[in-house]
Amino acid sequence: MTTKRNLTLLTDLYELTMMQGYFKNEKRNKIAVFDVFYRKNPLDGGYAIFAGLEQVIEYVKNLHFDEDSINYLRSLNLFGEDFLDYLASFRFTGTIYSVPEGTVIFPSEPIVKVIAPVMQAQLVETAILNIINHQSLIATKAARVCHAAGDKPVFEFGARRAQGPDASIYGARAAIIGGCLGTSNVISGQMFDVPLTGTNAHAWMMSFDTELEAFEEYARIYPKGFTFVADTYDTLKSGVPNAIKVFQKYKDKGELPAVYGIRLDSGDLAYLSKEVRKMFDKAGFPDARIIVSNDLDEFLIHSLKTQGAKVDVWAVGTHLITSKDWASFGGVYKLAAIENDKGELTPKIKFSENIEKNTNPGNKKIFRIYDNETGKIKADLICLADETLNESEDLLLFDPMSPWKKTCLDGGTYKVRELLACIFDKGNCIYNSPTTNEIKEICKKEKATLWDETKRFANPTPVWVDLSQKLFDLKMDLFNKNAKHKYH
Amino acid sequence: MTTKRNLTLLTDLYELTMMQGYFKNEKRNKIAVFDVFYRKNPLDGGYAIFAGLEQVIEYVKNLHFDEDSINYLRSLNLFGEDFLDYLASFRFTGTIYSVPEGTVIFPSEPIVKVIAPVMQAQLVETAILNIINHQSLIATKAARVCHAAGDKPVFEFGARRAQGPDASIYGARAAIIGGCLGTSNVISGQMFDVPLTGTNAHAWMMSFDTELEAFEEYARIYPKGFTFVADTYDTLKSGVPNAIKVFQKYKDKGELPAVYGIRLDSGDLAYLSKEVRKMFDKAGFPDARIIVSNDLDEFLIHSLKTQGAKVDVWAVGTHLITSKDWASFGGVYKLAAIENDKGELTPKIKFSENIEKNTNPGNKKIFRIYDNETGKIKADLICLADETLNESEDLLLFDPMSPWKKTCLDGGTYKVRELLACIFDKGNCIYNSPTTNEIKEICKKEKATLWDETKRFANPTPVWVDLSQKLFDLKMDLFNKNAKHKYH
Repeated sequence: MTTKRNLTLLTDLYELTMMQGYFKNEKRNKIAVFDVFYRKNPLDGGYAIFAGLEQVIEYVKNLHFDEDSINYLRSLNLFGEDFLDYLASFRFTGTIYSVPEGTVIFPSEPIVKVIAPVMQAQLVETAILNIINHQSLIATKAARVCHAAGDKPVFEFGARRAQGPDASIYGARAAIIGGCLGTSNVISGQMFDVPLTGTNAHAWMMSFDTELEAFEEYARIYPKGFTFVADTYDTLKSGVPNAIKVFQKYKDKGELPAVYGIRLDSGDLAYLSKEVRKMFDKAGFPDARIIVSNDLDEFLIHSLKTQGAKVDVWAVGTHLITSKDWASFGGVYKLAAIENDKGELTPKIKFSENIEKNTNPGNKKIFRIYDNETGKIKADLICLADETLNESEDLLLFDPMSPWKKTCLDGGTYKVRELLACIFDKGNCIYNSPTTNEIKEICKKEKATLWDETKRFANPTPVWVDLSQKLFDLKMDLFNKNAKHKYH
Repeated sequence: MTTKRNLTLLTDLYELTMMQGYFKNEKRNKIAVFDVFYRKNPLDGGYAIFAGLEQVIEYVKNLHFDEDSINYLRSLNLFGEDFLDYLASFRFTGTIYSVPEGTVIFPSEPIVKVIAPVMQAQLVETAILNIINHQSLIATKAARVCHAAGDKPVFEFGARRAQGPDASIYGARAAIIGGCLGTSNVISGQMFDVPLTGTNAHAWMMSFDTELEAFEEYARIYPKGFTFVADTYDTLKSGVPNAIKVFQKYKDKGELPAVYGIRLDSGDLAYLSKEVRKMFDKAGFPDARIIVSNDLDEFLIHSLKTQGAKVDVWAVGTHLITSKDWASFGGVYKLAAIENDKGELTPKIKFSENIEKNTNPGNKKIFRIYDNETGKIKADLICLADETLNESEDLLLFDPMSPWKKTCLDGGTYKVRELLACIFDKGNCIYNSPTTNEIKEICKKEKATLWDETKRFANPTPVWVDLSQKLFDLKMDLFNKNAKHKYH
């Protein structure tokens, strides 16, 4: 088991210099509200899967500057002794809200909200983003790969290609959350109690004089289940005939295990899988499974399926564990409000020339609105934290980019769920993380609330994320004030 | 400081099942030779930078199955008590060769070579590849970004976008090795004693009533150096004029620090940087530096430079720390030889229909050949481990893909260096890792041995990696034997 690490210094230098800036200023105890949100779904998809909260909780619980850290910071000649003294006794005393892991999420929503003295809220930015960005990326990629695989299981096989140990360890966790049945990464199995899986490698085959001997020896040692990598020499002329010989031997003894088969790791997977299926069926092994690997992703799986490939298990490595074609989630952490001198929270907005890049001001929450009849998501509504919704009343939604586009939901036809849960209350963790397997089940239910049109890969139908009238008015008001400030 | 972690179970399940397979077989003590190599330079470039060895060494030194691990493996119902007993007292007793960190490397070369009882050699595959693949990828990406930046420094700013904590921590290390001047990631600064750097964030600006107040307060706290993020409201109308006011104030007091300036994080960086430069120069601040960030990579930096952008420091985040457009290095670990029943090492080859995918058999080493006149690399020559080269003799090189293409180097015109160094000798580490800063210097010298044509981004001239006649003959011999085996 890996030891708990102190990641307190996993932070950008400017978080600490700004922190000292606040410390040496009357703002040191001002409460700020920061939102984590992202702007664009990975891979131009219709949704993302939120993951990483459990590791954020561990990080926040374990936040402290040990003596080595203080000494190191002192050596930088940037920090005063008063600030270093403060750090030595630092504990996080803020409040954190978050959507639960496994939740489907959409751009611009505050998926994590930190309400804390500005100094503290600033410190935790880097690590929270790092953890959430990584795991949400991989969970989203896994959900896509599993969507392509349909009713066939996907195994996560990418440990060797992940971007460092954590990327393999927590990437496997996120892949399971997103829908993978198992991982090859033993340490992830141990840490998160998730299913492990694996076959064997070409090196095993090459270390014997013949392929048949290698297969037989493997089956002798693992008689309760054996899957042979079949492409070391020649899949159709050597690998499959040899596999069939071993299957037959165990069948003759009445000892054929429930799970047996081969793995294809090279060549034309569409052609080979169909040929292998025919050979197995003809030889009397309709249950022999065909695992396929070799640089797969959701698009290749989709393509292989449309070509009629006969695949029982998809083993996905590099593309899944690195989200190779979209390697960064892009979550950001933005100031939404800060206490003014009178002790009131003042909403803040970051202006941008791109309207969709403007942030949403104030202390907010998210209502998810479901259609009663289908159980599918109708829309998400970002509101100010003091707003409520009454399911029996009509609900008027409008597109914040084009406010004239309106939809009215009749009272009684929709259900509302608030997405943000309180995780830390004034520094105390009041949330019990579900297990990884439980989160996977949550995610499965969450994915079922999406329309198929939102899950497809090409031009998915977006789920609307709207603003309440009150939040929209606040945003417009800040826009107008800024315009006056700039041009008058 | 992060605690040393036990990554022993960071391995694919099949490594352990194969390991038990060898254990329960007369092959358990057979010596095997495995090579780490890669097939294609990242980003279709002309080279890669090797990194990660120090962490591989830590991993190998720390390899052991603790009680928790043994209990966990027992719970999988896959492993016998005899094997678990063996694991409980397991120590790595093999020999490992590696090229030094910072070395420029090319496809198909054995950059790491593990010579160990096959059981042990199999176990370490996953973690060695994970570590080398990650750090070599980021070091290579960093070398490219720094090449684009030319004589201007590059800062690594990507911690929040990295694929998990390790990807940020060791990614920063690799980025420094590849050529970055500093990182924003404090924990990396602490762990590897590398320069830290940073500016400030929009949140700092937004937490004050006015931008000027935010700048003034920051300068008050950091009078020895201040760089303001200047695009919170309006770069040219607000950010730069306010920055100039603060610069002027310190200039009037005679207290202008050596390092001061602004950071541009949005907008048209080519246009803005030129305008800002003019404004600073006109106001009498020719030394004010302009740091630029916002989704930069080597191509964008190159493009901005050709547009005449005035940039003093390039701050590169997401694209560098994830190598976003080429997110996996693709290093593999292949069996090259295994002891036969007579105790002799038998060369092994993995066949593939793609000729360049065939592995190189046998226990090998690499000679790097330099041109005496220019100091540049002429070629790399992969040989069998018992071969020697005499610099005073003529050397005939040929392309292993097209053996009729030959070059003869006259004796006395070239210098030879052997690349692989012994790291572990029968389980004992006999290598002292240089510091990260020293590796960066090694890498700088290494990059200087490449022709400019090899360093360019589009269609780089490849460096030839040739085989010695002896190795080529061995390979052809194994090909012919396999062909006979298959077709006769």
